[in-house]
Amino acid sequence: MTRSIVFLSDFGIRNEWVGVCHAVIDKLAPGCPVVDLSHGVPPLDVSAGALLLADSLPFIRHDAIVLAVVDPSVGRDRDIAVEDEEGRLFVGPDNGLLSPAWHVEGGVRTAVSITSSSILLEPVSASFHARDVLAPAAAHLAMGGPLADLGPVIAPDTLAEVQLAEPLVEPGKITCEVLDINRFGNVQLNVRGSQLVASGLDRAERILVETPVGGSAVASTVATYADLSSGEWGLMVDPRGWLSVICGNPINAAQSLGVAGGEVVWLSPDRGPSD
Amino acid sequence: MTRSIVFLSDFGIRNEWVGVCHAVIDKLAPGCPVVDLSHGVPPLDVSAGALLLADSLPFIRHDAIVLAVVDPSVGRDRDIAVEDEEGRLFVGPDNGLLSPAWHVEGGVRTAVSITSSSILLEPVSASFHARDVLAPAAAHLAMGGPLADLGPVIAPDTLAEVQLAEPLVEPGKITCEVLDINRFGNVQLNVRGSQLVASGLDRAERILVETPVGGSAVASTVATYADLSSGEWGLMVDPRGWLSVICGNPINAAQSLGVAGGEVVWLSPDRGPSD
Amino acid sequence: MTRSIVFLSDFGIRNEWVGVCHAVIDKLAPGCPVVDLSHGVPPLDVSAGALLLADSLPFIRHDAIVLAVVDPSVGRDRDIAVEDEEGRLFVGPDNGLLSPAWHVEGGVRTAVSITSSSILLEPVSASFHARDVLAPAAAHLAMGGPLADLGPVIAPDTLAEVQLAEPLVEPGKITCEVLDINRFGNVQLNVRGSQLVASGLDRAERILVETPVGGSAVASTVATYADLSSGEWGLMVDPRGWLSVICGNPINAAQSLGVAGGEVVWLSPDRGPSD
Repeated sequence: MTRSIVFLSDFGIRNEWVGVCHAVIDKLAPGCPVVDLSHGVPPLDVSAGALLLADSLPFIRHDAIVLAVVDPSVGRDRDIAVEDEEGRLFVGPDNGLLSPAWHVEGGVRTAVSITSSSILLEPVSASFHARDVLAPAAAHLAMGGPLADLGPVIAPDTLAEVQLAEPLVEPGKITCEVLDINRFGNVQLNVRGSQLVASGLDRAERILVETPVGGSAVASTVATYADLSSGEWGLMVDPRGWLSVICGNPINAAQSLGVAGGEVVWLSPDRGPSD
Repeated sequence: MTRSIVFLSDFGIRNEWVGVCHAVIDKLAPGCPVVDLSHGVPPLDVSAGALLLADSLPFIRHDAIVLAVVDPSVGRDRDIAVEDEEGRLFVGPDNGLLSPAWHVEGGVRTAVSITSSSILLEPVSASFHARDVLAPAAAHLAMGGPLADLGPVIAPDTLAEVQLAEPLVEPGKITCEVLDINRFGNVQLNVRGSQLVASGLDRAERILVETPVGGSAVASTVATYADLSSGEWGLMVDPRGWLSVICGNPINAAQSLGVAGGEVVWLSPDRGPSD
Repeated sequence: MTRSIVFLSDFGIRNEWVGVCHAVIDKLAPGCPVVDLSHGVPPLDVSAGALLLADSLPFIRHDAIVLAVVDPSVGRDRDIAVEDEEGRLFVGPDNGLLSPAWHVEGGVRTAVSITSSSILLEPVSASFHARDVLAPAAAHLAMGGPLADLGPVIAPDTLAEVQLAEPLVEPGKITCEVLDINRFGNVQLNVRGSQLVASGLDRAERILVETPVGGSAVASTVATYADLSSGEWGLMVDPRGWLSVICGNPINAAQSLGVAGGEVVWLSPDRGPSD
C-alpha cells in the first residue's frame, strides 16, 4: 500500500478542481488513500489555510504526505516539497501556507523546488499547478519516491513565511479578530485559551464581547454548547484551541453580533449596568 | 483489509470537521474505506439524520461500521456503540439518532458506553466527540477490535429513542409535514406510499396539495419526474419511500408552494373549480 | 484490487444521493477506489456534464470505469454501458452525456443496455437509476465483470448525442456564451484558445468584452491570475482549455459583468474612447 495523502485547499467543491487532482493521484499512485482535510478554506486566504493545517497536524498520520493548496499567485510562486525536522513531508506553494505546520515540528530539514520534467504533467497549465505540479509530486512521494527526484534543493531560509495576526493581550482586555464563522454561527477568534488566562479575563464572572459595528454580548466561559440555555452567550475554547463566541440554540452568534471573518472584536470584563 | 466505515453527520463540508475525522480514521485504521453517506443533514436535526440512516440501511454493507453524528448536546450525551440483533455495528451519540436503524434490525443486542482511555484521543475536546471519541471507536471496530474494549456495557432500555413526527391519515385526507427540500426543489413529505393508499387518496384522479402559507397545487400521482410536462405537478414515491411533491422543469415545487422543512402540508382530493 | 470508478454527477452533496451510490459500490465492489470527479454539475445540465467529462479524460486512468449521471429524464432514458475504441468503459444514461468523451477516443466499440436482473438492485426506483442500475453496473465492471453481463448489445448508431453550443467566430469578432462561473467569479466561455487565434483577436492589444445586460470590460490576454493587478481585466485560457474572463482580486468578474451561465458574450477589439 502507498502512503496516504492528506489534501487541503480553498477549491470548494462546486467545480472539478479537487476531483481532477484526485483523478491524477489515482492515476499516478494507484490505491493511494486520499484524505480530504478541507476544501472550504476561504478563497485565497493563505493564513486561514496555514492555521487549519498547523492545528490539524496532531490528527494526521506522521507518514502521510500533506498536499496543501491556497495560492493567490499560482504561476508565480515556486512549488515546493518540504521535509521537516520530524520527517513529515509537505507539498504546496512557497507562499507561507506550510510554514506554521513545519514550525510545529522544529522547522525545515530539506526543501526542493518541484521542477523535474519527470514529475510535471506537461503542458503545465499556468493557472492550475495543483493538478499539473503539486498532485503529481505528492503522488510520487506517496509511492515512496525520493524528495530529490522532484527538483533542486533550495535553501530553507529563502522559503516564504506567513504572517499571522496576533491579538493584543492586556490585563483585563483583549483586542482580537475573527478567524472564521462556522456552520452553527460560532465566532472563532484568534485567541488561544492560554491568552485568555494571560489577560486575567478567565477570572471575570462575565465577559463583555464588543464589535466596531455595535454588536455586543455578555458571555460566561463554558466548556461546550450544551452548557448554554437558549439565548445564553458563552466563550469556549473550540476543538482547535481557539476561543469562540457561541450562543445557545436557536440564536446564531455571528449574525447576532453582526461580524464576519477578519473583523475586530474586543473582550473585557462585564461591569454590569450600574458600574 | 479493514471493514468499511459509513459516516453520516450534520457537519457540512465548509469546515474541516469531516476531514479531521477522516484523518483520525486514516491514522488509527490504515486503509479503512470510509463512505461518506451524507454530511448535509440539517444542522442539529436528529430526526432527519435518524430517518436518513434507517432508510439507507439496505444499501450499506452488513459488515460496515456505521458512524453517525448529529449531536446538539455534545459533551452531555453518552457516546455509545451498539450491536443490533442482526449483528450490525453502530457508533454515535445516545440521543436517538441510531434508534430507527436498529429497530429495522430487531433492536439492540449489546450496547456499550465509549469511555475506555485506550480508545479516547485525550485530552477529549468537550465539543468535538466525533474526532476524539466516536471516530476512534469506529476505527477500533473497523480493525476488528471487540465492542467490549470500548467501555462498559449499558442496558439497552436506558438508550434514548427519537420521536418521529407521524402524519395524520384519515379517509380522503392526510395532514403531514415537510421532511426535506432537495436540490431540485422536490418537497419530501413524512408520508409513506402505503399511507397514501390507506387514506384512499391514491384513487383520486387529482390531489390538492395545500399549505398554511396559502401555496397550493393540484397534482396527479406519477412514477418519476419524466412523467411530468413543464409546469405539471405530481406526487411521487421518492427513492427512499417518501411521498414527494414535484413539478415539471423549470418550476421549483418548494419555491412555488412557499414551504420549508418542518412545515405542514394537507393532501385531499381535488374537486375542481365547480365542485 | 478492483479497478477504480470515476464518478461525475449533478447531485450536489446536500442530499445523500452521492453517498448512497458510494455505499452501493462499497457493498458490491469491496475496496474499489472511487474518485469523485465532481458532483457540482449544474442541475440537469447534460451539456455541462458532457464537456466536463470530455475535458477531464486525459487526467483519468485509462482502466477506470467512468460513472456519469446527469439525467433529466431518469426513468425514461435507456441506461447504457459503453466501451470506446480505445478500450475505456463508461456507464451512464443514454442522453448524450457520454458522447463527447467517447468521440475523443475514436467512438464507440460496443454498447449495451443495462437491464440484466443479475445487476439491477430490485425493486428499481423509477427516479434513482444511479443507485439501482448505474452504480451496480459500474461496480460489476470495476470487479472485472464482462460488459456482456449487463444486458443486450445495442447499435452504436442508436445512441443519443449531445449538441453543444458553438461560438460564432468571425474575423475580429466572437459571439459566444457563458459555460460556467467559478468560485472566484471567473467567467468561462465556450471558446477554445485556437478559436481566439482564428478570429485574429489574439493580436488585438486589448479586447472589449460585452454582454446584453450592458456589462462590459476591456481585457488583455494573460496566462494566469497573477498577471493581473487589482481590478485589471484579463482573458486567459483556463486549465480545461476554455477562454475565461477574469479580473484581478478583489473584483469578481461575473458579478461585475452581471452575467450567468448560458448568457451571450461578445468579444471584439477595443478601439478606445476616441476611435
